[in-house]
Amino acid sequence: MSGIYDHDDFFARYMQMDRSKGLHFAGEWKQLEKLLPDLEDACILDLGCGIGWHASYFAKNGASSITAIDQSEKMLKQARKLHSHPKITYVQADLCAIQEDKPFDLVFANLCLHYINDLLPLFEHIYKLLKQDGIFLFNIEHPVFTAGDQTWINEPPVWKVDNYFSEGKRETVFLDTKVEKYHHTLTTILNGLLKTGFTLEAVEEVVPSLELLDKEVYKLEMKRPMMLLVRARKAEKRA
Amino acid sequence: MSGIYDHDDFFARYMQMDRSKGLHFAGEWKQLEKLLPDLEDACILDLGCGIGWHASYFAKNGASSITAIDQSEKMLKQARKLHSHPKITYVQADLCAIQEDKPFDLVFANLCLHYINDLLPLFEHIYKLLKQDGIFLFNIEHPVFTAGDQTWINEPPVWKVDNYFSEGKRETVFLDTKVEKYHHTLTTILNGLLKTGFTLEAVEEVVPSLELLDKEVYKLEMKRPMMLLVRARKAEKRA
Repeated sequence: MSGIYDHDDFFARYMQMDRSKGLHFAGEWKQLEKLLPDLEDACILDLGCGIGWHASYFAKNGASSITAIDQSEKMLKQARKLHSHPKITYVQADLCAIQEDKPFDLVFANLCLHYINDLLPLFEHIYKLLKQDGIFLFNIEHPVFTAGDQTWINEPPVWKVDNYFSEGKRETVFLDTKVEKYHHTLTTILNGLLKTGFTLEAVEEVVPSLELLDKEVYKLEMKRPMMLLVRARKAEKRA
Repeated sequence: MSGIYDHDDFFARYMQMDRSKGLHFAGEWKQLEKLLPDLEDACILDLGCGIGWHASYFAKNGASSITAIDQSEKMLKQARKLHSHPKITYVQADLCAIQEDKPFDLVFANLCLHYINDLLPLFEHIYKLLKQDGIFLFNIEHPVFTAGDQTWINEPPVWKVDNYFSEGKRETVFLDTKVEKYHHTLTTILNGLLKTGFTLEAVEEVVPSLELLDKEVYKLEMKRPMMLLVRARKAEKRA
């Protein structure tokens, strides 16, 4: 998992992003919200909770308890300041290391799984943390987005895909900072879930929103997918 | 559906391709074969059967009947010459128009769905043609492959992705011939199946094979996925 979120400059830049101002400023939210299960009395694990926008939404929409995990001290400090709620427990921890006794109705992970090198043990862990029929809903950077050096070729702009089948570390630049991420193929993500025992209920690429983007950025974003939403269910006992 | 397969020059070039020499010369076969259901006594619909290699494999491996459909007269003539079998019925027809009274255990479609503009009515049609618990197994050109102008940028080579969210017609060159294909997003393919009522059992990108490719071509093919294999099941009655 990336430790950059605790660097002062990076964190300050992150806090200035539109998505730090609320859920409706995040391009994926409209689609992601529709994929949420019934939140009434739900026991939720929010992986990579950041500054707590989703945890707060869950608390206000009927969830009975939210365990909200992040690795970043700065993120959690901000979350506690902005989105404290009696139903939310913020915990500083590695996403892969969480141990909980009570099973969850929903494990939610927005834009954090591409910081994880090996997804399969995490999928296995999440499977165990879920109740029977529980939902694992996540948003991961799209394999088309993560495969190459994550830049455009100009003019005219087209997106570069490279080294697709070589999974693993990618060094890229996000908010003027060198960031390490991990590329996973679609096979690893989706077949990984299926082999873990999940059933797939939705696989959706986030469609750029003309409401949130200026026209030129929108035209660019229509050229390649950036995020992949997946809703999986722990549907039945595995053999 | 593309009528190019009945053009003399194109057909002659197609027949000279490695994949026309047998299943083991096709890069996808090793992975695709593992995704087949039990063929014993299976009633199979082979969409876009081409020169009949798969139909012949099904016949020799226990299937009770194979309806093998292709739009191309030349392909079917060759199929009847090379792969006649009492259990195979070759039919010249549009893939979207097939009407059959008996339900199938398996609908198989290798590298033909990217010639179809609107996949959703075809998925619906295939769903109806399948028995309860029947399998729809297909190999489609990958959205990463079909999105842009389907060429590399040199040097060093990287794959171009463009106009991803603009589905529909693409004009490309295959075997020195202008060919019309259709680009579909991953969302349309996978969520389309889920919304039709299928459950997904496997989603696999075809991994390039060092046995079949020379080293330079292999290195290139590792840079981007070309084919997507999907195994879906008509699992339960829809509401």
